[in-house]
Amino acid sequence: MPGNIFGKNFQLMSFGESHGKAVGVVVDGVKSGLKIDGLKIDEKDIQAELDRRRPGQSKVSTPRKEADQVEIVSGIFEGKTTGTPICLIVWNKGMESKDYGPIKDLFRPGQADYTFLKKFGIRDYRGGGRASGRETIARVAAGAIAKKMLEKKGVKIVGYTIQVGNILAEEFNENEIEKNPVRCPDKKAAKKMEKTILDARADGNSIGGIVEIIAKGVPVGLGEPAFGKLDAELAKALVSIGAVKGVEFGSGFAAAELSGKENNDEMQSVNGKIKFKSNNAGGVLGGISTGQNLIMRIAVKPTSSISQPQQTVDVKGKNKTVVTEGRHDPCICPRIVPVAEAMVALVLADALMVQNARE
Amino acid sequence: MPGNIFGKNFQLMSFGESHGKAVGVVVDGVKSGLKIDGLKIDEKDIQAELDRRRPGQSKVSTPRKEADQVEIVSGIFEGKTTGTPICLIVWNKGMESKDYGPIKDLFRPGQADYTFLKKFGIRDYRGGGRASGRETIARVAAGAIAKKMLEKKGVKIVGYTIQVGNILAEEFNENEIEKNPVRCPDKKAAKKMEKTILDARADGNSIGGIVEIIAKGVPVGLGEPAFGKLDAELAKALVSIGAVKGVEFGSGFAAAELSGKENNDEMQSVNGKIKFKSNNAGGVLGGISTGQNLIMRIAVKPTSSISQPQQTVDVKGKNKTVVTEGRHDPCICPRIVPVAEAMVALVLADALMVQNARE
Amino acid sequence: MPGNIFGKNFQLMSFGESHGKAVGVVVDGVKSGLKIDGLKIDEKDIQAELDRRRPGQSKVSTPRKEADQVEIVSGIFEGKTTGTPICLIVWNKGMESKDYGPIKDLFRPGQADYTFLKKFGIRDYRGGGRASGRETIARVAAGAIAKKMLEKKGVKIVGYTIQVGNILAEEFNENEIEKNPVRCPDKKAAKKMEKTILDARADGNSIGGIVEIIAKGVPVGLGEPAFGKLDAELAKALVSIGAVKGVEFGSGFAAAELSGKENNDEMQSVNGKIKFKSNNAGGVLGGISTGQNLIMRIAVKPTSSISQPQQTVDVKGKNKTVVTEGRHDPCICPRIVPVAEAMVALVLADALMVQNARE
Amino acid sequence: MPGNIFGKNFQLMSFGESHGKAVGVVVDGVKSGLKIDGLKIDEKDIQAELDRRRPGQSKVSTPRKEADQVEIVSGIFEGKTTGTPICLIVWNKGMESKDYGPIKDLFRPGQADYTFLKKFGIRDYRGGGRASGRETIARVAAGAIAKKMLEKKGVKIVGYTIQVGNILAEEFNENEIEKNPVRCPDKKAAKKMEKTILDARADGNSIGGIVEIIAKGVPVGLGEPAFGKLDAELAKALVSIGAVKGVEFGSGFAAAELSGKENNDEMQSVNGKIKFKSNNAGGVLGGISTGQNLIMRIAVKPTSSISQPQQTVDVKGKNKTVVTEGRHDPCICPRIVPVAEAMVALVLADALMVQNARE
Repeated sequence: MPGNIFGKNFQLMSFGESHGKAVGVVVDGVKSGLKIDGLKIDEKDIQAELDRRRPGQSKVSTPRKEADQVEIVSGIFEGKTTGTPICLIVWNKGMESKDYGPIKDLFRPGQADYTFLKKFGIRDYRGGGRASGRETIARVAAGAIAKKMLEKKGVKIVGYTIQVGNILAEEFNENEIEKNPVRCPDKKAAKKMEKTILDARADGNSIGGIVEIIAKGVPVGLGEPAFGKLDAELAKALVSIGAVKGVEFGSGFAAAELSGKENNDEMQSVNGKIKFKSNNAGGVLGGISTGQNLIMRIAVKPTSSISQPQQTVDVKGKNKTVVTEGRHDPCICPRIVPVAEAMVALVLADALMVQNARE
Repeated sequence: MPGNIFGKNFQLMSFGESHGKAVGVVVDGVKSGLKIDGLKIDEKDIQAELDRRRPGQSKVSTPRKEADQVEIVSGIFEGKTTGTPICLIVWNKGMESKDYGPIKDLFRPGQADYTFLKKFGIRDYRGGGRASGRETIARVAAGAIAKKMLEKKGVKIVGYTIQVGNILAEEFNENEIEKNPVRCPDKKAAKKMEKTILDARADGNSIGGIVEIIAKGVPVGLGEPAFGKLDAELAKALVSIGAVKGVEFGSGFAAAELSGKENNDEMQSVNGKIKFKSNNAGGVLGGISTGQNLIMRIAVKPTSSISQPQQTVDVKGKNKTVVTEGRHDPCICPRIVPVAEAMVALVLADALMVQNARE
Repeated sequence: MPGNIFGKNFQLMSFGESHGKAVGVVVDGVKSGLKIDGLKIDEKDIQAELDRRRPGQSKVSTPRKEADQVEIVSGIFEGKTTGTPICLIVWNKGMESKDYGPIKDLFRPGQADYTFLKKFGIRDYRGGGRASGRETIARVAAGAIAKKMLEKKGVKIVGYTIQVGNILAEEFNENEIEKNPVRCPDKKAAKKMEKTILDARADGNSIGGIVEIIAKGVPVGLGEPAFGKLDAELAKALVSIGAVKGVEFGSGFAAAELSGKENNDEMQSVNGKIKFKSNNAGGVLGGISTGQNLIMRIAVKPTSSISQPQQTVDVKGKNKTVVTEGRHDPCICPRIVPVAEAMVALVLADALMVQNARE
Repeated sequence: MPGNIFGKNFQLMSFGESHGKAVGVVVDGVKSGLKIDGLKIDEKDIQAELDRRRPGQSKVSTPRKEADQVEIVSGIFEGKTTGTPICLIVWNKGMESKDYGPIKDLFRPGQADYTFLKKFGIRDYRGGGRASGRETIARVAAGAIAKKMLEKKGVKIVGYTIQVGNILAEEFNENEIEKNPVRCPDKKAAKKMEKTILDARADGNSIGGIVEIIAKGVPVGLGEPAFGKLDAELAKALVSIGAVKGVEFGSGFAAAELSGKENNDEMQSVNGKIKFKSNNAGGVLGGISTGQNLIMRIAVKPTSSISQPQQTVDVKGKNKTVVTEGRHDPCICPRIVPVAEAMVALVLADALMVQNARE
């Protein structure tokens, strides 16, 4: 079973390569007639999310300009979803493959060059081919539709950068997030993160970070024990994003040093309503949503493409030095935010449908 | 799509409750005639893994005695697998539901009591029912078969405890792991971990920890981009284990503070063989195995069941105090080791088959 | 992806061999708390369906006595479904493998002996092993639960024999079906069919037939174009029953000789209600249920096991003559009726859940 | 789980509407580097199959001209498959929706108008939208790739018309099939079928028929008992084609009148090779291929769109008369042949991969 399909009820299949004709996605299981209560899906909605993902947004991201204009090919009729598959395509433009010629035969460290060639026996070396970050266009486009579905149910997903190198966000101001180029909810920390990123670029290097995602308004009861636990599905979804090296929920790895008394979220009844006194669980107990905010964090590795020389080998097994000339994001956190939000949206839309199916 | 099936080619479905008649699993997709080169699957193999999981193994685990004897119900004929579904059952014994009577109407903090009731409208309150740790018997039993398949391919999976509370393993001696009750590869640290765990129990409390799993001999080329990345599937598999609050691969969350130059694994040709100079990737690039060791770590929360009083509510929404009387593991790490190994084995067996399918 | 799982939301996995320890099934996705409006699932309900399937019911079926007592292993608590997997087991009894010894190395014509050995390289020769008709116990047991779910929605499924050899049912009296041993809705034809079957047995031979299944009360709107059409899923479900060699819906193969004017079901409004003037479609248009009765027919081949000598080969490729001594049904139609009903119920329960998921 | 995905290892997702922008498909799981032994996939191969499906081929089919030019959007690099998803699109041209305006609010008898509206609450009325026969473009395009894979394994699939109205093919000359407009292997019968079809058209009517498909060179051992039997998967695949009302294998419905002695395929050893003396099984025993030819037949209903007036209702429930003006095929058999072949190819490619996975 190849890996380009995601989801069971809210379902998508992605396709396309970085420097091929296009990147796209087919989305199925979308509720028909989606245009109720002021909510409608149109190219603008999907475009808005794609614009948050595309390169060239700010001085901390790659100066490459990619318009990334979405085209709706099917599934929408007279402005409404029809319940049939929605095909969305972003045609690649200005992708001169000559940029990538010199590294055609090299295995770039930290990239999937070596593993794709070993797995498939052939490799589309133009800009990483299918392994390129451009593949996430499909996720963001499909996620835009999932977000619309969730919006109707009162679910809202927010992602933001909480760490770049050794700079940590210390304050949380949701309104600040989209105002600074690193998408950090702490204005002061954002400034320092920006400097860290620009220093890395000046150095021909890159830097890692951590992105946090919260989902608000998630109803209690989503997630399918034993193997389809909500956090298990979210873990898969988030780790499937290139550059993500870890994921944690609630207290996460910090729980290793906590006692049960400290980590358990005690419950109480307040004015007849059941409340949790804390949220170390991150909104999931036994793989099922508790009704609290879902809280998760992903570890984002430093961008592999750096201009400092690195030791490697070529396809013939000869030792070589590689210098990646292209224009790359020195820190991928700001641009991974909308992708991570999209993946969380896709998991939640699917989980809602699985639970609906029981009625 | 409910969540009790795992895997696509190597496939299993688990069933059973903690205090019901039995816990069991049906395993399908297993190669027929599995008895080649001295390898055969019999109840002893499966039993050996179950014995590593069962309670009452040592003074750091619960003193509950559960024999956990496996019965092979189908799929094995004249000592060999036939390619048909293998049903394995462990009948529950000595499960007096009276132990759990007092907490029948309470939502125990950190447990799935509240979420199961909200999701399903009904709850098997006897010992956690389906949400009990006994559900992992199914994983370990199926994993024992997966390990047999992998053994034939030269793949070996080893799990061990590397942190309990604030005690960290500092040495790695694989032979030490199964010799101490915490399954720690560092003999000295193991002693300290043991004390930390016994102190927590004496205190009516519990303690968290971190388990690391490595898989050796994994061939290059396993894993299915984009959504079926090997690390994505492993993340799902591991987070689906109760008590796991996070997972990371290779440098993991530490990558947040690293630069690309530091984190990239450079490559070199040594005597005509391609080698990586480091393994920050944890054995996966672009979601495909590199041929290096797979390295992953899971965050294990402190056991929720503690005997210190905790604030909670009952099913009628009244404030209550709960004291969990039962005999529980104060630290689940030692017993989660074989479960985590099993989940990794199940993912790898499946990934191997998906790759085989391409031939 | 091996083939022992059926369904996506209402999901089951079957296991077990004819002469192994047991035949069983795990059913998942079943609504929790199923005991509403006088409907409850208990062993009696499942047993009642199994009793319709088991051998030895009448003089036209095999004189073998199999009690086929179901045991509920999991998923039911205090008499109600809990939403967790329901494991049902029928332990095999009185299965002396000596009965099958003589044919151990022979490929019986019309049986799966040859293909199982070629596919898996090993074969459980005891009574057909996994390929035995006993495998349908799992279908009937799971179908009994599906029928309960459907009963709540007002859906009723009825199967019956309409042809045995060249004897055709000419009348339809639903009350007659379970009163005669061939399960034929035409009392007179039933008598003739009975004679045809007994004649075949006396002759050491067997005879084929046709079973029709209707589903009443199916709501409009079930089925998933393009590939998950309701009739496509039903076709798969029914052809997956051993001995079924064809399936047709509504006018079926007779449509080959009809014109569009004859075959189209015209519509009209009667007292404000939309009605179809005929049902050549068999209750499905474009793969979606119309709200009319679903009507389908299956071709049932004559039982392969006959006592007349037949030419065959053994596992070493030597020419042999085989005589199947056992006690077999000379016509499988009467006993396939509850199996076919179960498969239709499983498809409809699943289709209902898929449609629910959209809400 | 919506129904636009087909297959498990060889996997595809289709999209698009009759009068929307395009019809297309994404195909995954295709072996990489497919260009070995003179076999390569290019637009010409896919185009050749699409040309067999497209309208306007002959005087018995609709005079509508649709060029149906395929565009490869992804997954092919330097003329070879890369193992990544292959997106194929046929852009709709010359689809003036005014043709369909008059029937916008009518439920055409025999069409999916009523059921789509009831299921989704909205309907793309332009030319049937997603329910149009143009959806089969996706099947034929994906099938062309599957055929290439199968060709390498020595598998060949041939479909042809064996009945139109009451005219039956009586001879089988494979070379004749593509030479006459009805795709009939009997030259004389083809002439009569042609007349029957033209008579139906002259009458403002249509006529049904039967198509047979055989697959040669299928290795023994394909198909997954119990529910994934090869014939069960083929039944689903074929019945999922619009207008197909039944499917049968080998002796099929005729088996109802046969005895076991007549219907069983006896075996014999000829020069050390195991042979079957007949093929009433149609090449499948116990759901597993026998190595003989697969033989199956589908019942094709008469085209629903006829120009004779028919009684129906409109979306408001008012009685109306409908006359379908468009240019439609009076008999769909000739054009369903390549679609049926494609579906058989898709099932076989998938079954081969599932079996490969076991190695």
